Amino acid sequence: SSPSRFLSSSKPPSPASNLRSGVMTGPMGVQPPKLVFRQLFEKESSTYTYLLADVAHPDKPALLIDPVDRTVDRDLSLVKDLGLKLIYAMNTHVHADHITGTGLIKDMVPGVKSVISKASHSKADLLIEAGDKICLGSLFLEVRATPGHTLGCVTYVTGDGLDQPYPRMAFTGDTLLIRGCGRTDFQGGSSSQLYQSVHSQIFTLPKDTLVYPAHDYKGFTVSTVGEEMLYNPRLTKDEETFKSIMENLNLPYPKMIDVAVPANMVCGLQDRAAKA
Amino acid sequence: SSPSRFLSSSKPPSPASNLRSGVMTGPMGVQPPKLVFRQLFEKESSTYTYLLADVAHPDKPALLIDPVDRTVDRDLSLVKDLGLKLIYAMNTHVHADHITGTGLIKDMVPGVKSVISKASHSKADLLIEAGDKICLGSLFLEVRATPGHTLGCVTYVTGDGLDQPYPRMAFTGDTLLIRGCGRTDFQGGSSSQLYQSVHSQIFTLPKDTLVYPAHDYKGFTVSTVGEEMLYNPRLTKDEETFKSIMENLNLPYPKMIDVAVPANMVCGLQDRAAKA
Ligand SMILES: [Fe+2]
Ligand SMILES: [Fe+2]
Repeated sequence: SSPSRFLSSSKPPSPASNLRSGVMTGPMGVQPPKLVFRQLFEKESSTYTYLLADVAHPDKPALLIDPVDRTVDRDLSLVKDLGLKLIYAMNTHVHADHITGTGLIKDMVPGVKSVISKASHSKADLLIEAGDKICLGSLFLEVRATPGHTLGCVTYVTGDGLDQPYPRMAFTGDTLLIRGCGRTDFQGGSSSQLYQSVHSQIFTLPKDTLVYPAHDYKGFTVSTVGEEMLYNPRLTKDEETFKSIMENLNLPYPKMIDVAVPANMVCGLQDRAAKA
Repeated sequence: SSPSRFLSSSKPPSPASNLRSGVMTGPMGVQPPKLVFRQLFEKESSTYTYLLADVAHPDKPALLIDPVDRTVDRDLSLVKDLGLKLIYAMNTHVHADHITGTGLIKDMVPGVKSVISKASHSKADLLIEAGDKICLGSLFLEVRATPGHTLGCVTYVTGDGLDQPYPRMAFTGDTLLIRGCGRTDFQGGSSSQLYQSVHSQIFTLPKDTLVYPAHDYKGFTVSTVGEEMLYNPRLTKDEETFKSIMENLNLPYPKMIDVAVPANMVCGLQDRAAKA
């Protein structure tokens, strides 16, 4: 993996993480209360936004994953109520179904940095790659490249280590949905790549890892890696069957894609980018 | 408090619970992984259904709080995937905005018992009252009477004790919503009673107790007692101001009330009750 360019260097799993697996994974799991975590729902696009903060750190640093333009006020009001200092506004990928809130958030909260993958070919303050770590006080997220739904999709996974949240949490974007996955017919999508991404980058995580997707259309809020390995109707199939399923979905043309994709490549601030 | 009539007796807070508060409430909180917990959303009525199970118990007993008729198939399919044995289908109160799924669930899963408060004057297998405990393997829920939105509203709270989930979780129905509360102008509602219920039965819980309401209309999924004590725009007011707020809401007549209330008083199986 490439050396990390921001904030912290990536390293192989530490002995401490093995110790934790051995010692703590019994009748008692340890959840450091330093993590404040909130899942937030945007109804029109059925999008989940996630708020994470390290409240044990004096600054109470916080980040938002996949904020939506329409719900920025709600999200920032919660950040304020909880006394958090927002430092990152991140996307898992360039969304085609809604406008990201990252640009608005940058306008409204000075100092916030927008984050997206370098592979998305978008503008943002931090362009992250596989192996990077995003630090939040003493917590961190690992970046895993999970292309397939789009070329630049990433999955953010909470750290491995005794002092990190247990079970781990994977923010999978549209790569892995609960009992489903994102479409692969636009934005440099590839069913073969999505299949490889899920199997190599997500299904290799501990089975109790919590799966938090960017969307759910049936009212599910969370799943686990183990559950999706057993019950995902698409990704439990072999690769050829999976590719044939994805080729025969016959989905309509994404309604907002022509507006949302260009906007989201500049943090949702399309007009300003056009003027600049 | 009245002696418990089902499954277990209620008792005052045990020394173990004080010990836990002293010992565990520091940098590390303990979350027994024996609890499997899922929050589920029904979009049309913005209702949250909750699934709880004790997966450390050989039977993996499970219960559902506030299931909705339209999403019973989803809920039971999740119960099946997780290998759980559903034993209770519970309501926090007689809902006026959707039809409960408890009757359908009883039909589809033999042995499941429906649960509602005695004060709701409804039919169910278990009619619970303040002080009762509902056991789920080695986990349990306390019943707290929280009238005000309806005469029969209860709040179910996870147990106090070293072997119970930490932080505690309160399933508040429509008594306390995130930054709001249920209306008090129908079904034996009373703003004065709701105010007293929240202050005496919910705001007296530990501040880190998680608040899981029956509805949210803005996409919030959870709050805490401490957060609502500080930021609930209604319940932070004095009682007179609260009553005046509730009297001046000018809400429309509840759309489904004439269908839903009679149906929900017989677990959503109105036609069958009429024929019987
Ligand atoms: Fe997407
Ligand atoms: Fe209600």
